[in-house]
Amino acid sequence: MDWRPNREDKKPIYKQIADYIELGITLGDFPAGSKLPSERQLADELEVNRSTVVAAYDELGAAGMVSRIKGSGTLVSADIWGISHKRIPNWGRYVEYGSFLPNLPLVQLIRKETQEETNRINLSSGELSPDLFPKKEIQTILAQIPFEAHLGYDHPQGNWQLRETITDHLKQTKQIETDPESILITSGAQQALHLIVECLLKPGDAVAIEDPSYFYSLPIFKSAGLRTFLLPVDKDGINPEDILDLHKKHRIRMVFVNPTYQNPTGTVLSLSRRKRLLELSSELGLPIIEDDPYSLTSFDGKLIPTLKSMDQNGTVLYISSLTKIVASGLRIGWVIGPKRVMERLADAKQQFDFGHSIFPQWVAYNFLQSPEFLLHIQNLQEQLKLRCDQLMDNLKLKAGHEVDFLAPEGGIHLWCRIHNEEINEKRLLEESLKNGVAYLPGSVMGSKKNTIRFTFGRGNLPDLTKGIERFTHALKSIRQD
Amino acid sequence: MDWRPNREDKKPIYKQIADYIELGITLGDFPAGSKLPSERQLADELEVNRSTVVAAYDELGAAGMVSRIKGSGTLVSADIWGISHKRIPNWGRYVEYGSFLPNLPLVQLIRKETQEETNRINLSSGELSPDLFPKKEIQTILAQIPFEAHLGYDHPQGNWQLRETITDHLKQTKQIETDPESILITSGAQQALHLIVECLLKPGDAVAIEDPSYFYSLPIFKSAGLRTFLLPVDKDGINPEDILDLHKKHRIRMVFVNPTYQNPTGTVLSLSRRKRLLELSSELGLPIIEDDPYSLTSFDGKLIPTLKSMDQNGTVLYISSLTKIVASGLRIGWVIGPKRVMERLADAKQQFDFGHSIFPQWVAYNFLQSPEFLLHIQNLQEQLKLRCDQLMDNLKLKAGHEVDFLAPEGGIHLWCRIHNEEINEKRLLEESLKNGVAYLPGSVMGSKKNTIRFTFGRGNLPDLTKGIERFTHALKSIRQD
Repeated sequence: MDWRPNREDKKPIYKQIADYIELGITLGDFPAGSKLPSERQLADELEVNRSTVVAAYDELGAAGMVSRIKGSGTLVSADIWGISHKRIPNWGRYVEYGSFLPNLPLVQLIRKETQEETNRINLSSGELSPDLFPKKEIQTILAQIPFEAHLGYDHPQGNWQLRETITDHLKQTKQIETDPESILITSGAQQALHLIVECLLKPGDAVAIEDPSYFYSLPIFKSAGLRTFLLPVDKDGINPEDILDLHKKHRIRMVFVNPTYQNPTGTVLSLSRRKRLLELSSELGLPIIEDDPYSLTSFDGKLIPTLKSMDQNGTVLYISSLTKIVASGLRIGWVIGPKRVMERLADAKQQFDFGHSIFPQWVAYNFLQSPEFLLHIQNLQEQLKLRCDQLMDNLKLKAGHEVDFLAPEGGIHLWCRIHNEEINEKRLLEESLKNGVAYLPGSVMGSKKNTIRFTFGRGNLPDLTKGIERFTHALKSIRQD
Repeated sequence: MDWRPNREDKKPIYKQIADYIELGITLGDFPAGSKLPSERQLADELEVNRSTVVAAYDELGAAGMVSRIKGSGTLVSADIWGISHKRIPNWGRYVEYGSFLPNLPLVQLIRKETQEETNRINLSSGELSPDLFPKKEIQTILAQIPFEAHLGYDHPQGNWQLRETITDHLKQTKQIETDPESILITSGAQQALHLIVECLLKPGDAVAIEDPSYFYSLPIFKSAGLRTFLLPVDKDGINPEDILDLHKKHRIRMVFVNPTYQNPTGTVLSLSRRKRLLELSSELGLPIIEDDPYSLTSFDGKLIPTLKSMDQNGTVLYISSLTKIVASGLRIGWVIGPKRVMERLADAKQQFDFGHSIFPQWVAYNFLQSPEFLLHIQNLQEQLKLRCDQLMDNLKLKAGHEVDFLAPEGGIHLWCRIHNEEINEKRLLEESLKNGVAYLPGSVMGSKKNTIRFTFGRGNLPDLTKGIERFTHALKSIRQD
């Protein structure tokens, strides 16, 4: 073999070797049934580590190109170009193979379990309970406002009227000054995060996220090849000085935070830490991604100033949405930042989905600019407070000796710690699902064991009572094992 | 320096070097204003090519970390940690830097030029003219059908009712047998392509696409690190034997085709070639991605059998949408394939945008299952034929000696070749834009010079006449230069 892997190629060495051999098999250089060189032999010949050859042979094995037989070495599969000329593509391999990573298994499990129509109480998915959606208001918009919007492709940054309305909305409700040209409409906050990760970062880049956090649960960071570093969250949120340490060690390129009623802990980043975070961000020229889905859900209606409203140096990209305050099925979110950044993200959004559908934008525009919107928010705040109280009361009543939590002042999540002993997280979840209640295990958010996220916003009052009953029942029954 | 780049790391060597030096600058190992080793010196020390060091220094230069001064070498920038402690993030660098690639400059230019409200006639964007959208039918749905759909997160594969309706629709109109579990609703065909590329392929994989083709214009393939190989299109579409050749040389992992009224050439893959393509696909276990946005736009209402309807071995993933037959701003498309593949794509879609908005799905469901849908399609076919004739008549009349084309039998595009001499493509486009008409230059689709795509579906009858007048005027005026 006079071929050698190219060490300056972007493609990993093991993959180059696997591809080279696969090509040889295809071309008949390595006939069906023949034996390939031993791992050691090939490693010596190509001047690579043996583990690299093992990875290459494993890859070929997974593709069904070779069989790896203990004691006999690696054989080219006999049926590669066999007599049967009908082959179905190896879909199983394609599915496992692609570069974008699947969701965490626990996330997939919970999604599957809560998708089916059952009597199970869902305190797991991060959205509002159906009775909190402004269904009547939306029905009225659809039935009574004549639809006159353009049905063709729209501006890559989204519908102009909606962007104008969001500009007004942000000024009125959050004291954020922006303009329609600095806004990009996205499919919820999720798409904004995905676009930022894909367009502004590269494999190998270091980013900092809260621990625990929603960001932790997202495979988008790992899929993009980013190195994520964790900022521990205490009762006042992250400690900005931790960023300085991380930056010195790893050249952090972006910081992702959810400073207000954080998911999952419900904490609020204190004002002094907000100031210090912005100060550090300017000193280091380090962009902050502020994810703000919850600031309008304050139980007492008090507004906590967003980082964006305090951002004098333009270091913050601000993400928000109607997902947690109107309806998750609407799929309207937005990101705000310098025009050139928005243009870059919008260009990529065109390639991802060719722009946003006019229908949810039209509904969002009409709802946001109607007087019903603020009435809805007021009602939502009251309802969320009631539900949070109900959940906390029931937890105290039924499991007061076994769990503790910090009472949140807004948002839709309650973060609980189970004390005393280490619980088998998977068993507790399975037992709870069997008992008819779903929640999110803390490990999904990167937390140590013994933590749980209950989304009180997802339940109505009777369900919250019944859900906690079922949960405590599960907790007791696995303790008795 | 006792640090050395890691040659088995995924991160390119030059990037490792740049990051190492950037870190050193941050930590003060290389003080502001100090001189870095010469390119040759560093290359020797690290045992890399000099060009690798040049790339690393250039990267640092672009980031403003160093200045490269001819004759004096490479200096650490003096103002990195300068007296001004307020730094705006270098957004320009972030924008240029991310891994996902921007759209082609010509695509961006045309998009920008056609976005503004002008009197310019748009024969460029691949969509229907506003007067062909079923606006009244959609208004009636919105105003008269009570909206009762769930407003929360829906199934990752999309709304069940819509998937059922699409199942019926495909059986009735295209003789495709499928079921709702094998369907994933996407934001047009575009998102389906993006999901397939991200989830089923890896960097370095070889794929085959038509030449010229819409696929060629998409940076998603390059962003995903794929190697694309071209299959020339003649009047009967691609020649399947070309795939065999490519496969032997490059181990093709997927073939992307738009077999019916191909974009941009308008050609139809002949029946015998369809059969041979499917045969080869089964022999090689090679997935075919069939993009089928146009098969219902046949001018004479005759149905050309899709590859999917002939696919007995399950080698075809089938993509279609309502974009080119109902409205582009609706953003409803779908992909059909094995359930496990759909689940994988749906899982990724959750991470991209957290699922599809219910509103366009609800509109699509109601329209697809109404009797108005087929009436609309019938009218659309007649209108498209009229418009195509109008465009061809005008071209023959005004530029018959200068251009030729194949008359299409469906679709929305006319593909023209300008004969006699080599035209400066960019000048002709600029002159045409100045004269008030936009079209798509062939090079965007990977074509040799002297080709143009006119989208007759995008114009009304008077605009088509006027548009061709303006175009021929531009053609003449640049010839006189």
